[in-house]
Amino acid sequence: MTLEDLLTSLSSKIRLALRRDPEEKTIVRVEEVEIGGDRIAVMAGPCSVEGRDQALQTARGVKEAGASILRGGAFKPRTSPYSFQGLGEEGLRILAEAREETGLPVVTEALSPMEVELVERYADMLQIGARNMQNYPLLKRAGKAKIPVLLKRGFSSTLEEWLSSAEYILREGNGEVVLCERGIRTFEPSTRFTLDLSIIPLLKGVTPLPIMVDPSHGTGRRELVEPMSRAAVAAGADGLMVEVHPSPDRALSDGPQSLDLEGFRNLMRGLRPFARAAGRGM
Amino acid sequence: MTLEDLLTSLSSKIRLALRRDPEEKTIVRVEEVEIGGDRIAVMAGPCSVEGRDQALQTARGVKEAGASILRGGAFKPRTSPYSFQGLGEEGLRILAEAREETGLPVVTEALSPMEVELVERYADMLQIGARNMQNYPLLKRAGKAKIPVLLKRGFSSTLEEWLSSAEYILREGNGEVVLCERGIRTFEPSTRFTLDLSIIPLLKGVTPLPIMVDPSHGTGRRELVEPMSRAAVAAGADGLMVEVHPSPDRALSDGPQSLDLEGFRNLMRGLRPFARAAGRGM
Amino acid sequence: MTLEDLLTSLSSKIRLALRRDPEEKTIVRVEEVEIGGDRIAVMAGPCSVEGRDQALQTARGVKEAGASILRGGAFKPRTSPYSFQGLGEEGLRILAEAREETGLPVVTEALSPMEVELVERYADMLQIGARNMQNYPLLKRAGKAKIPVLLKRGFSSTLEEWLSSAEYILREGNGEVVLCERGIRTFEPSTRFTLDLSIIPLLKGVTPLPIMVDPSHGTGRRELVEPMSRAAVAAGADGLMVEVHPSPDRALSDGPQSLDLEGFRNLMRGLRPFARAAGRGM
Amino acid sequence: MTLEDLLTSLSSKIRLALRRDPEEKTIVRVEEVEIGGDRIAVMAGPCSVEGRDQALQTARGVKEAGASILRGGAFKPRTSPYSFQGLGEEGLRILAEAREETGLPVVTEALSPMEVELVERYADMLQIGARNMQNYPLLKRAGKAKIPVLLKRGFSSTLEEWLSSAEYILREGNGEVVLCERGIRTFEPSTRFTLDLSIIPLLKGVTPLPIMVDPSHGTGRRELVEPMSRAAVAAGADGLMVEVHPSPDRALSDGPQSLDLEGFRNLMRGLRPFARAAGRGM
Repeated sequence: MTLEDLLTSLSSKIRLALRRDPEEKTIVRVEEVEIGGDRIAVMAGPCSVEGRDQALQTARGVKEAGASILRGGAFKPRTSPYSFQGLGEEGLRILAEAREETGLPVVTEALSPMEVELVERYADMLQIGARNMQNYPLLKRAGKAKIPVLLKRGFSSTLEEWLSSAEYILREGNGEVVLCERGIRTFEPSTRFTLDLSIIPLLKGVTPLPIMVDPSHGTGRRELVEPMSRAAVAAGADGLMVEVHPSPDRALSDGPQSLDLEGFRNLMRGLRPFARAAGRGM
Repeated sequence: MTLEDLLTSLSSKIRLALRRDPEEKTIVRVEEVEIGGDRIAVMAGPCSVEGRDQALQTARGVKEAGASILRGGAFKPRTSPYSFQGLGEEGLRILAEAREETGLPVVTEALSPMEVELVERYADMLQIGARNMQNYPLLKRAGKAKIPVLLKRGFSSTLEEWLSSAEYILREGNGEVVLCERGIRTFEPSTRFTLDLSIIPLLKGVTPLPIMVDPSHGTGRRELVEPMSRAAVAAGADGLMVEVHPSPDRALSDGPQSLDLEGFRNLMRGLRPFARAAGRGM
Repeated sequence: MTLEDLLTSLSSKIRLALRRDPEEKTIVRVEEVEIGGDRIAVMAGPCSVEGRDQALQTARGVKEAGASILRGGAFKPRTSPYSFQGLGEEGLRILAEAREETGLPVVTEALSPMEVELVERYADMLQIGARNMQNYPLLKRAGKAKIPVLLKRGFSSTLEEWLSSAEYILREGNGEVVLCERGIRTFEPSTRFTLDLSIIPLLKGVTPLPIMVDPSHGTGRRELVEPMSRAAVAAGADGLMVEVHPSPDRALSDGPQSLDLEGFRNLMRGLRPFARAAGRGM
Repeated sequence: MTLEDLLTSLSSKIRLALRRDPEEKTIVRVEEVEIGGDRIAVMAGPCSVEGRDQALQTARGVKEAGASILRGGAFKPRTSPYSFQGLGEEGLRILAEAREETGLPVVTEALSPMEVELVERYADMLQIGARNMQNYPLLKRAGKAKIPVLLKRGFSSTLEEWLSSAEYILREGNGEVVLCERGIRTFEPSTRFTLDLSIIPLLKGVTPLPIMVDPSHGTGRRELVEPMSRAAVAAGADGLMVEVHPSPDRALSDGPQSLDLEGFRNLMRGLRPFARAAGRGM
């Protein structure tokens, strides 16, 4: 099946999320930051907002290193009910303070339609996580949100299902959708997920929406974040989402895949030649 | 890793959903029907409630053939926003009418916390579908529901994740949880999903909760529903969930995997010797 | 895609391995034992032949419990070069002696075309293991063997690939091919493989060849062997292949999934009602 | 599990294929070409040698564009026995002629121990294909070959299994082993396989052996070969293996994933900036 055949087969089920001509591309604006334009957008920050100091310290650090958006979780979808569930609205307030101080716009997750309004009030971009990729009431509510949406791929979702979920958002009137690959589930036990970079050029062939990559969740291993970030940019990604924590070993969630601030600075420095090779700025 | 080792490893993250002694078992009551007791419980009915006639005709047919619970969807989680999305509250009203006429208790799905109250009002058991297995606000709300919960396995969820989701419900105070295997995603393209029957005896070794199997979604193929129903009972399942439609070829959803009423009668007749071999009634 | 559509799509690539009419079925004879006929055939024995005593003791035990064929490995395909690699021709001689004493025909594996001649000399059925399902020189040589062939499914092979491998054997002139499902690789970590029982009724719809199931490799857990054996028979399997060892905890390979002799007797006893329910003898 | 933990866990089963210190790296020489050194090695050529003209034309074209090794299949492992099976020894003779004319060393596949001698006679590097990654007699024979070995990853093989297969070769005395990632099997239907680039930095952390990537088989789509080649280099790959055919639409095998000569020239040109960013030559 050629790309043209794939596009035709998708077009019987998906409309707004498909490109109409090969040149079409959507540029999503998160405050001053463009995603899908000439520059690689880098979202960085802690998995969870754990407190004011941790969040502000991280925000300053990633800003200095060149990140353009601050990420951080206030409502955390955790496998176990006994794990840290996030600070909720207090976490959102801390993120808003970090934005005020650093100027970085903020992206954060909502887990249900009821939380979307809160996120709209405090943040600049709404994240829909992998486990909620097919949470249709949430997608519909996101489609009415006043801010752009970052839609992560479900960890066993096909390209068609992913674009169909984007369609749920777009047809409610919110055209500002960014896709984010974050690893799929396979038989391989030595990484937490398998990062599927081939989905990037494949998506580029069928959708105008920008595509980000999250190498932190996608691999689950700190050592792999830098090489996979480079590979994502080389494959054509429009941006990266990276977990950074001042002391990863003390993180309340996802420590093993988080970079420290020094690691993030190195990542950013090492990334530039690859962005340039891809004809992109940073 | 032996079963004892598995149990130990799970017990650091899961409490209420694990069995305390090998004999412990939870029997969940849906009105008069026991799930997890001596008799195999069969839930049957259409994928979607499409209208009054279709639903009532199916309800009468499955009742006559020996089903003990009526299933039917009013809120449908559909991959595409352009597919039939269910009749909503009208569908719930039709299900309630079918219950009144046939005496069969009703199980139906809610997609968000807001819909749970409606489902409680009209139905006897709340279904949480595969795509929502890790929708934590929904799980927490289900944990406060006044009716039992049927928790389907996510199509790429591990045993540990599934039991952790059950734990979310149990710790809110609702102890009436039934698990339902409905097929996992694999590389094999000739079935829609791969029905994982080995999870049944494995779950039986670690949890007291009853376990059902949905061979309709689990295979996506009408011809496989009967043999896989027999196999599920032989593997130790406490019940089955089967899609039945008076005219599968005209169904608005899941036609290829639905039995017609004649097919369902045959299924029930053919199942009895296997239930007996398993020491169960029907 | 209906079963008829699947059959049509396969028929452009596969000929001899497809059924021509719905009633056609191949019965494979291994000495006096029929596979694919009215009776469930049970192959049992140790993963590896480790010595004369272990093999003879197991052979006597499984014979007494009702097994019809003795299985045992002389050439072992082991992931690590430092694991026990089998006794080679000495192992074959021991198996032949066990056959002489018990009357049970013997099935054993060859790993390369060169070993097939040895296996033909000592054994009654040639096994091609999962890792060699697409070893085409081996398949072609098996197609010229004077004994029937047991073709295991590769652990990530599709139905189409499996039947295509059977076709390699059949078209060389050996029509005596039995298929054996032994678990596929999925994301689920709590079982070694995921036993795909739905492949049985699906295969029954498209091929006349008999189908066995290996619940020992298919699950990797001793406790699951009995329930999954019952489920396999209920799903329509023509036979089972079960690993049995007099002292599983001392086995040189696959101990955690081997039954001891007592366990195997219980398995056989418990299986009868399910065979009867399926209209089969044992 | 950190990289150090992974290394420790592997070291109980694998010896020669693991690195002893972080700086250790194996450079494999195929005639004049180094794999694993400063320069990215590119192997290119047709999936199957179909005839003299096709092979020579391709060889000249890829040489001109900067390829360093000629690939081409003479013994073809094909799913269906009715597909083109390769020209056998005649194919090897054609490859040798192409080498003589262009100076490019040749890599080609053997399917069984018996074919290795032929390959040694005509070619410069022995390929072991994905389906034979656990064909142990073939691995052992490769370990005695006089030429280096390219060991492709099985399409559902774990890192541990892959390195264990390399160990089979190394311990027979052949230290010249190159690993090649070529895509793994997942649920995603829109690519033939899912190219697992994260395995590259992970392997770099545990083995000194060089690592190549085959984006042609790894994606099954011509349009993805160029972006995934760039990504592979960015992720740290030591080389690429690319399918090239003068007229892909008439290829007897793998046409949809083959580049034409023009496409290959573009690939090579576009790759240079990424090689440079990675600190490598071409």
